[in-house]
Amino acid sequence: MQRGKFITIDGVDGAGKSTQIDFICDYLAKKNINVILTREPGGTELGEKIRTLLISTDTQSMHADTELLLMFAARNEHIKTKITPALEKGDWVLSDRFTDASYAYQGGGRGLSVELITLLEKWVLQDFTPDVTLLLDVPVALGMSRVESRSRKDRIELETHDFFNRVRNGYIERSKQFPKRIKLIDASKTLEQTTQQIKTILQTL
Amino acid sequence: MQRGKFITIDGVDGAGKSTQIDFICDYLAKKNINVILTREPGGTELGEKIRTLLISTDTQSMHADTELLLMFAARNEHIKTKITPALEKGDWVLSDRFTDASYAYQGGGRGLSVELITLLEKWVLQDFTPDVTLLLDVPVALGMSRVESRSRKDRIELETHDFFNRVRNGYIERSKQFPKRIKLIDASKTLEQTTQQIKTILQTL
Repeated sequence: MQRGKFITIDGVDGAGKSTQIDFICDYLAKKNINVILTREPGGTELGEKIRTLLISTDTQSMHADTELLLMFAARNEHIKTKITPALEKGDWVLSDRFTDASYAYQGGGRGLSVELITLLEKWVLQDFTPDVTLLLDVPVALGMSRVESRSRKDRIELETHDFFNRVRNGYIERSKQFPKRIKLIDASKTLEQTTQQIKTILQTL
Repeated sequence: MQRGKFITIDGVDGAGKSTQIDFICDYLAKKNINVILTREPGGTELGEKIRTLLISTDTQSMHADTELLLMFAARNEHIKTKITPALEKGDWVLSDRFTDASYAYQGGGRGLSVELITLLEKWVLQDFTPDVTLLLDVPVALGMSRVESRSRKDRIELETHDFFNRVRNGYIERSKQFPKRIKLIDASKTLEQTTQQIKTILQTL
């Protein structure tokens, strides 16, 4: 049994992940590839409960370190009980956000040290890493204008323009550090142009 | 303003913490000391929600690493938003369990490496430590027989005799490592004899 591929899709809020996720699932289904769609934070029963704590606007004052620890608690459960077993069965896994988001949001956005995040990553992930990460990049103003139209924003979506600029820079920094794995995709173009970029990357897998 | 004292009380399930906590609160109140009673996991609004995830029997299969990360997420919030502000105001704080429990339960009980726990402790607590820790020690069979009479056991109370033996040994190990801070109290004697040991320790504070 060949191990499945692990694809993650990441980017600031409003980068258009949901639309591209639909495209990827359709595309892989047509190739007869069984793909498990999942997300972070969340993806497991316990992880989704942790997600609720993380995005609830009741916990506006949560400390950045607490946020990071909760992210990795959910991620540990996610990898061990869902992602790894699926890949070992030969299924492909597509995760809406993964560890790069911790570097962008808790590192870039909240200003936590990269050393701290790396320390948790090494412990929880060890050598585990996505086969490819699709990083949808848009200027923050465009992303925010898309999120603006959502009926109710969560705790993190309520952050400032400056915060999301730091998040975006955090993502770009990561893509420079891991250029082979992280594919920086210009998602400010038309939907078709973005989809075309993703299709080209999927073909190489 | 003199900084308050931070007292923690710890020990295996059924060691008789609750009864002694009542005694300590009464004793300090009579000395006109304002004492904040709190607990771990929990103690804050977010921490109590994390506690619910940790002890719920719905999450029987939680990974040990996830358990440890959730414990420290709740602890970080607890220290920064409740314990430290209270101590700085001059109040005393009494916590039903604290970091030593992570060494005993996740380290001893679950078998996680001490290095991993120390790493989280150094990050989250830095130099912060209780002024005194009252470690109530009872043979596991006695502790378990007391827990047995509880109407409904939580996820951790449902563990085996062997698990609690490892937890007890983990606590004893900690008390040998930090003999000045951690006071090992024989809690298998009568209530009065246990209370008397605690009273003697409190007088030194």
